[in-house]
Amino acid sequence: MPSPNNLSRLRVVLVAPRNPLNIGAVARAMSNFGFQALRVVNPYSPSFREARSAVGASDILATAERYKSVAEAVEDCTLVVGTTAVRNRDLQHPVRRPEYGARLIRQRLGSSNVALLFGSEKFGLSNDALSHCHWLIRIPTCDENISMNLGQAVAVCLYELIRDAKQARAANQLKPATAAELERITTLLLEALQASGFLDRRRVSDADERIRRLVRRLRLPERDAVIWLGMLRQMLWKMNEGKKPQT
Amino acid sequence: MPSPNNLSRLRVVLVAPRNPLNIGAVARAMSNFGFQALRVVNPYSPSFREARSAVGASDILATAERYKSVAEAVEDCTLVVGTTAVRNRDLQHPVRRPEYGARLIRQRLGSSNVALLFGSEKFGLSNDALSHCHWLIRIPTCDENISMNLGQAVAVCLYELIRDAKQARAANQLKPATAAELERITTLLLEALQASGFLDRRRVSDADERIRRLVRRLRLPERDAVIWLGMLRQMLWKMNEGKKPQT
Repeated sequence: MPSPNNLSRLRVVLVAPRNPLNIGAVARAMSNFGFQALRVVNPYSPSFREARSAVGASDILATAERYKSVAEAVEDCTLVVGTTAVRNRDLQHPVRRPEYGARLIRQRLGSSNVALLFGSEKFGLSNDALSHCHWLIRIPTCDENISMNLGQAVAVCLYELIRDAKQARAANQLKPATAAELERITTLLLEALQASGFLDRRRVSDADERIRRLVRRLRLPERDAVIWLGMLRQMLWKMNEGKKPQT
Repeated sequence: MPSPNNLSRLRVVLVAPRNPLNIGAVARAMSNFGFQALRVVNPYSPSFREARSAVGASDILATAERYKSVAEAVEDCTLVVGTTAVRNRDLQHPVRRPEYGARLIRQRLGSSNVALLFGSEKFGLSNDALSHCHWLIRIPTCDENISMNLGQAVAVCLYELIRDAKQARAANQLKPATAAELERITTLLLEALQASGFLDRRRVSDADERIRRLVRRLRLPERDAVIWLGMLRQMLWKMNEGKKPQT
């Protein structure tokens, strides 16, 4: 994950948002992913007020800055990236997929401020707003419904920025059982199957091997092997109980 | 992007959602990313009705299915994945990052149905719901505000699923057991443990959930599930034999 210092260099810029719930959702996603600087250009005033005064409104909303133009809102940034749902809008700009766009943004955040622009719920970014952008990010949505909810689009973009692809595989797997433990389970299971009559009903010459393979296929972690041993031991004891000479 | 056919195999399962706007947002993200099957377990009824009747409610909402239990909602799936914001909840399950989790889900969608579970806005997934899961996905949020909005969390997870990572490694694994088969094994094993006295000796309040998780961790292929069912049935029969009235 990039350092908090770098994340604070990102300015999330909402251009002409209309819905207070969306503004709140944007702030929440920023808070989830560790971003702080929210800028709002020409919001519908009642919405902005409502978002700010909502129950649980965050520091992010309280410190959100309001601008009259995109130019002012991105003034301190060296890279301005727009977002679009549209595949082809006369393509004045290179359009990048989120993964690659996020990589370029992260690089830039190492040394200076970056603005990430989102348009209004209804119309997206205007041509004027787009003209401030160096390039665009498009989230790969379906042709049938390309237009994402504003809060969700912001969440996906910010998630891409903090995703750490390399750590992805960090598996936290459990310690596997040893062959000795698996063999003890195999032996107990065979005894239990014998006691239950299971092996008599299905006579095969290689029952031992079949059961051994069956147990190996379980890929048991060590801590589970102990539990299975205990369960089988108890069931075996119970089945043999019936056999005891009656005294 | 995976084929539409594969995407239709994903069941997005909302457990006990309360807010109609969130249910609508989930449906919208599904539509954006090409998913169709929405299942809702025990929703707050007025919310579910309101979401369905909202202006512009989609086909996804119209065809959303309602279930009484998680068990029924995941019955036709061979992989059940939960989502959690929490970093450490006694960690009964492996917790995967979205990238890696999405890869595993995509692989499985190549051949069978997968359920992706999201908990209620307030409490997340209950321990009972979690006990139906094979493993969990955690979106890497900040310690200061780990809890994402439901619609945004779903959007991020679905985005990860359609993001064009290197395509699923052709899985040539055995056909995995369905959740229904695993649940039958769980039930039989619980009965067998009861009959053997195992559960009396180790009294815990959540034996059902522990055993359910234990069985899920076996990752049984279908053909082995049949064998385990047969073995358990025979042992159970044997243990109960002693109880028969002597005639």
